[in-house]
Amino acid sequence: MNQLRIGLSQLNLRVGDIKGNTKNIKENIKKAESLGVDILCFPELSITGYPPEDLLLKPKFINDNIKALREICKYKTSLIVIVGFVDKKDDIYNAAAIIQNNKIVDIYHKSYLPNYGVFDENRYFQIGKRIPVYQFGHIKFGVTICEDIWYPGDPIQTKVLVGKAQIIFNLSSSPYFVGKPEIRERMLRTRARDYNSIICFCNLVGGQDELVFDGNSMIIDERGHLLSKGRSFEEDLIISDVNAEKVFRSRLHDPRTRKKIYKLSFDDSSLENIALSSSSATKTKKKKSIKPRKIEKLTEKDEIFNALVLGTRDYIKKNGFKKVVLGLSGGIDSSLCLVIAIEAIGKSNVIGVLMPSIYSSKGSVDDSILISENLGIKNLKIPIEDIYKSYIDTLSETFSGTKQNVTEENLQARIRGNILMALSNKFGWLVLTTGNKSEISVGYTTLYGDMAGGFAILKDVPKTLVYELSKFYNEKKEKKVIPDTVLNKPPSAELRPDQKDIDTLPEYHVLDRILKAYVEEDLSMDEIVLMGENKNIVRKILKMVDLNEYKRRQSPPGIKITSRAFGKDRRFPITNLYKQ
Amino acid sequence: MNQLRIGLSQLNLRVGDIKGNTKNIKENIKKAESLGVDILCFPELSITGYPPEDLLLKPKFINDNIKALREICKYKTSLIVIVGFVDKKDDIYNAAAIIQNNKIVDIYHKSYLPNYGVFDENRYFQIGKRIPVYQFGHIKFGVTICEDIWYPGDPIQTKVLVGKAQIIFNLSSSPYFVGKPEIRERMLRTRARDYNSIICFCNLVGGQDELVFDGNSMIIDERGHLLSKGRSFEEDLIISDVNAEKVFRSRLHDPRTRKKIYKLSFDDSSLENIALSSSSATKTKKKKSIKPRKIEKLTEKDEIFNALVLGTRDYIKKNGFKKVVLGLSGGIDSSLCLVIAIEAIGKSNVIGVLMPSIYSSKGSVDDSILISENLGIKNLKIPIEDIYKSYIDTLSETFSGTKQNVTEENLQARIRGNILMALSNKFGWLVLTTGNKSEISVGYTTLYGDMAGGFAILKDVPKTLVYELSKFYNEKKEKKVIPDTVLNKPPSAELRPDQKDIDTLPEYHVLDRILKAYVEEDLSMDEIVLMGENKNIVRKILKMVDLNEYKRRQSPPGIKITSRAFGKDRRFPITNLYKQ
Repeated sequence: MNQLRIGLSQLNLRVGDIKGNTKNIKENIKKAESLGVDILCFPELSITGYPPEDLLLKPKFINDNIKALREICKYKTSLIVIVGFVDKKDDIYNAAAIIQNNKIVDIYHKSYLPNYGVFDENRYFQIGKRIPVYQFGHIKFGVTICEDIWYPGDPIQTKVLVGKAQIIFNLSSSPYFVGKPEIRERMLRTRARDYNSIICFCNLVGGQDELVFDGNSMIIDERGHLLSKGRSFEEDLIISDVNAEKVFRSRLHDPRTRKKIYKLSFDDSSLENIALSSSSATKTKKKKSIKPRKIEKLTEKDEIFNALVLGTRDYIKKNGFKKVVLGLSGGIDSSLCLVIAIEAIGKSNVIGVLMPSIYSSKGSVDDSILISENLGIKNLKIPIEDIYKSYIDTLSETFSGTKQNVTEENLQARIRGNILMALSNKFGWLVLTTGNKSEISVGYTTLYGDMAGGFAILKDVPKTLVYELSKFYNEKKEKKVIPDTVLNKPPSAELRPDQKDIDTLPEYHVLDRILKAYVEEDLSMDEIVLMGENKNIVRKILKMVDLNEYKRRQSPPGIKITSRAFGKDRRFPITNLYKQ
Repeated sequence: MNQLRIGLSQLNLRVGDIKGNTKNIKENIKKAESLGVDILCFPELSITGYPPEDLLLKPKFINDNIKALREICKYKTSLIVIVGFVDKKDDIYNAAAIIQNNKIVDIYHKSYLPNYGVFDENRYFQIGKRIPVYQFGHIKFGVTICEDIWYPGDPIQTKVLVGKAQIIFNLSSSPYFVGKPEIRERMLRTRARDYNSIICFCNLVGGQDELVFDGNSMIIDERGHLLSKGRSFEEDLIISDVNAEKVFRSRLHDPRTRKKIYKLSFDDSSLENIALSSSSATKTKKKKSIKPRKIEKLTEKDEIFNALVLGTRDYIKKNGFKKVVLGLSGGIDSSLCLVIAIEAIGKSNVIGVLMPSIYSSKGSVDDSILISENLGIKNLKIPIEDIYKSYIDTLSETFSGTKQNVTEENLQARIRGNILMALSNKFGWLVLTTGNKSEISVGYTTLYGDMAGGFAILKDVPKTLVYELSKFYNEKKEKKVIPDTVLNKPPSAELRPDQKDIDTLPEYHVLDRILKAYVEEDLSMDEIVLMGENKNIVRKILKMVDLNEYKRRQSPPGIKITSRAFGKDRRFPITNLYKQ
């Protein structure tokens, strides 16, 4: 037996939902069994969801997850199941259980614990040091967890070159950012060739607070060819037949396997060989053949749009909300947010609110109405003039002798925030905020005003990308859902007469270039100027970014789509006297 | 020469302020020199401030810090200076430079990197593996950084038992929580006896976002006696003469030094001996004798109160604010906040605002006025009734057919938040929020309402402790600054007629017991019930804590005073389906 049917359960597992995840896992085992799968693999920390964060500091949570593993173990099946969970020994480990015949045959512990960017795994887990290889009939396979496969060398190297594993499973919860699916696929295909191995990569899918997991699980043969690939941004069961004999043939050409000649530093002693029962393996099963599936390839815009839709949908639904509400200003940001919200949960669940003030142009109001009509949603119109006047009257004595300034602008934004929150409180709707990454970077948003809400869809989407996504959406729908007037008008907060964003900010394509260099790439002022930017503008922008850390610290979560998002990914002090 | 004069510069160094910190360090070297100090030690990461967080991911920041080290190095002095900085070699290290005669004699790298609680040092630093000991005349000393000294064993063990170091310096940025100064002193005195060594512990002082560093630097002799101790919560220069001959005598009784007999596992090979110039050491200096200083011991309440005052003052001043504003409700929380703010920056810089509604009792208004008079501050009175009415009118159509509920309560709280923010915008005052830890735990605060502001003084102070601190303050001042009526009335948000906190919450002493068990100690529901609490109440409270994570994620920073504060210390997912 050199032929094996592999299954990868790419599931939307939910953080903390140990019962629900266990049920989902068992149902998938049943489904895979009916399709003749021999070995079925689930994502990293399948039982707890990822990342469980400080839930991992609760002993009861760990125990509940182990009980769930036992329950999965009891489930009658002829499959070998590989499932992610938190192991508890002398310490806790990010682990994978290899289950066969209602027994845990072995437990693998993740070796590389990421502790950068959004990851904090050193905060919780002990490092795994064992390097086991599993023998199943004539086939040998190894198991790795996420980060383990991102580096050449061990733990894969010893498994393959010493242990002769032909198949490497990888349980992942690998979050999305723009371009990551491609980087990941390239790496995995390289890794397959690096080690003449079949790689079975099973990724999580779904939104979890700031993160979106994109799925894109894949089975790759020893020459780096994709045998099968899971869908992006949705649940999937990926199945493929693999042939270990081909791996053997391919390795006859690999000089590293002749280690007596090359004297590489393999530590043979760290390898453990663990035998699985081969009863099921030796049986010659009659299986229906698996039709090769067309492998989809998303464009970058499609990818980002899908990430935003899934991240938004999962935040809403996993937190128990049915409907959302957002303010419509007639601008591009709220238009795109509206579109995404509707894609996420349907037009009947999305409420747009127009809250015009004396500074709102007729165009803005008309545009908000037009886009609502285009999308077929009802909207509410709640003018804020009377409330604004009552604030001004109430504060007139205190403010006497002062000039009108940003105070009055913020008052309007905060009245709108207060109205949206009142609608949320009264009707149980989740408030979506509409600010984009460019504005949030420089503080061109009002704390408790347009920043008030539960989820910030565009928190990591720069303004120039907001335009591109809006155009992309219109093209996809083959009609001008987002009207040209919205796409073409100069951005404005409309909080004072004739206000335009470019009164105080550079053009957005310049701003976004500077912000990418500073926020995402940590370049210094001088380095950014060397890129050809104006020094005074750069200095001003960098200062604005630093000064507005206090606002971002109080902003709602939003979906990470760049390599460096605000939130857990970029941890800056508020009190910070460093001058760039 | 066996006698040495040690100095510890317990400074309030500021995150990112490389220039300011460098200046402060040089001035302290000068001062210490005039007092005849031989070796002067500064806190951990003295040059950058602590914790610099993601500033450490900016190469220019690292380079600027190294330039500052060179500048300190150039400063003419006969002292040996030990200063904390970020070293850049193949990677970056949390490091201490040992400087003598304008040369960096050696650089020590921190071995234990904390990555729990509020700490993220694995995110940034490489682990130090060298174990150097420095010879200065007849005296040998070792250098450690913060966490290094919190564990028995290496790196101290090899330095002392193999390297024969008589003095161990420890550069720290060890943050405060209740009882930490005592725990730390006990540990350090034990460590001194453990290794028959003189311990010189130099701690940072000052507030940095959520953290307060309490100072309490100390010099301890080889028998665990305090020779000198720095002040709590303020800058200080601690000086003491130490005698290495006594250490030698004491070690004649230590069986571990006869390692041929006991065969302990010291790794002699990892030790490096580094000689310093002994020219200054061999000179017989005439020095003025140092008068032993009275060692103060704060009560727990004094300690907490000082931590809150320093944390508040430093947040205000380091962020460039001169004045603060806060809402006065006539309740205990805003009264205590007012008192702390005044202690922090003086009564002329604190503005209290009364914002009565139709539900505000006459007592509350009178109490707010009384406490303002007691403290000699001016206050503003801005009634919110008209604004509230304009909201209700504006929303009447949208809300028609609905019942009055929490929406209307939150509206009032948010109007107040909006007014305070308007005052902040107009006059540049920082808004202080007044919610306590008990309320914030269960979400008994309004997002964008009473949670609106820049700094939350009582964020980590449970309600029962709010009462204790208020009484403590009155006793200290020997008058009823906070009136009895405030101390004795049942807590109420006064957002609807006759509302009392105990309508929806258990008594605060019960609530705080449950919250401590759940939030600080991670006990499960069953474990808390076993403590003797009512199961239904426990279930309800735990659910409230979990559900309100989204609010806390948007709350302003506040001062950590317990072993587990909200913020960086307790990292919970918002989307969390775990049922306790």
